[in-house]
Amino acid sequence: MRLRAIISYDGSAFSGYQVQPGKRTVQAEIERVLQIMHKGTVVKVVASGRTDAGVHATGQVIHYDSPLTLPMDRWRTALNVQLPGDIRVLSVEQVQDDFHARYDAVGKTYRYIWSLKEVHSPFERNYSVHVERYKPNIEWMKEASVHLLGTHDFSSFCASNTSVKDFVRTVHSIRLEVHEELNQLHMEISGNGFLYNMVRIIAGTLWEIGIEKKSVEDLPEILRSCNRKNAGKTAPAHGLYLEKVVYLG
Amino acid sequence: MRLRAIISYDGSAFSGYQVQPGKRTVQAEIERVLQIMHKGTVVKVVASGRTDAGVHATGQVIHYDSPLTLPMDRWRTALNVQLPGDIRVLSVEQVQDDFHARYDAVGKTYRYIWSLKEVHSPFERNYSVHVERYKPNIEWMKEASVHLLGTHDFSSFCASNTSVKDFVRTVHSIRLEVHEELNQLHMEISGNGFLYNMVRIIAGTLWEIGIEKKSVEDLPEILRSCNRKNAGKTAPAHGLYLEKVVYLG
Repeated sequence: MRLRAIISYDGSAFSGYQVQPGKRTVQAEIERVLQIMHKGTVVKVVASGRTDAGVHATGQVIHYDSPLTLPMDRWRTALNVQLPGDIRVLSVEQVQDDFHARYDAVGKTYRYIWSLKEVHSPFERNYSVHVERYKPNIEWMKEASVHLLGTHDFSSFCASNTSVKDFVRTVHSIRLEVHEELNQLHMEISGNGFLYNMVRIIAGTLWEIGIEKKSVEDLPEILRSCNRKNAGKTAPAHGLYLEKVVYLG
Repeated sequence: MRLRAIISYDGSAFSGYQVQPGKRTVQAEIERVLQIMHKGTVVKVVASGRTDAGVHATGQVIHYDSPLTLPMDRWRTALNVQLPGDIRVLSVEQVQDDFHARYDAVGKTYRYIWSLKEVHSPFERNYSVHVERYKPNIEWMKEASVHLLGTHDFSSFCASNTSVKDFVRTVHSIRLEVHEELNQLHMEISGNGFLYNMVRIIAGTLWEIGIEKKSVEDLPEILRSCNRKNAGKTAPAHGLYLEKVVYLG
């Protein structure tokens, strides 16, 4: 039986999502708990994609196979009881045997959060990015973001250490919004898929436009150049959240 | 010159506020940084009161004396640059030489936060208390809280290991409020002073009334009995925030 789960995790204390020998990772924690539930049998977990060290998730999707005849509403509790508090299973459901969390994903939504507080709150220090003494011009960031909408070669917004050959992706929407009550700036970005570090490089580039290190007019040229060097710095991992993975049907 | 600072800290990784040999405490961190700033001279820090391990603060007040001729607006930055990210100085101002953070405090406000989410968010696990499968009746909690307003002997709401002799305190207000957007229940309580664990025992007792382990009518009797055994369990430390300390003038 194939199961699909939506999970949330605080990336702060993980060396990313994917299993790495000797490191604490989200995948390793989930596989450890599934192995206990399956009396020692290894259960492989497949996610929609990996996330880097420090990156958070509020809607990561995984799949795994299990012969257990557990009532569906017991799965979530059974996993959460044994998982550490920085990973929570939000839901578990049965899916068709050929469902694949990675190959079947047709879209993703990420969120990037900056704190606009004068002093960074100690409660937010791992959950939003604070840049001392800078107030970004959010209208400029919005104007620039429009250039990224649609289908483009995003080579300029991809970390150079990648094995990917096709750099064309479609960005469906980018919303920049100030949450007054939290004194935070959020960027919500949706697309059919994202290259390695693409969201963080977009966040870093828009931020540089906001603080006048780059101008709105630079963005089309950065995109056209297909050269990572022309985009802004990669924004820090701890401001990034994988929020949603979209599947057909 | 005497200085008063408002500070905020995430209590998760501290063994409480007060200096304890071999333990990481908020006071020790601040005194360590002040000692560096004063070229090795020890600078004693006095707070409005201690907070326990795991308890947070968004508005703790401290005072200390310094001969440094630092412009007032540089103090905050100078401290924050060297403090760990889980303590932040929000403001620093000069006060009269006889100001005392503890003795001059005439009131305090605490906040207690419960998560009402079905699954506890991994991002909130150290910042709100989650009780699996219980939905409290908040109207009952509100009704019961009214009995605590005013001046009473709060012996029933004081941890037994205390050296205090006078158990009479005045509670000015208790507000119980659901924050829909966060799916949290907040209790905000203000008074002229609080006994050891008093806010956490009040929170624990009101919670037990909310989940029908105790009834609203029990509360006046618990208060009258002056017996800690009759109140509810002490609610966990990580739901508690010292929010404000009030001084005259």
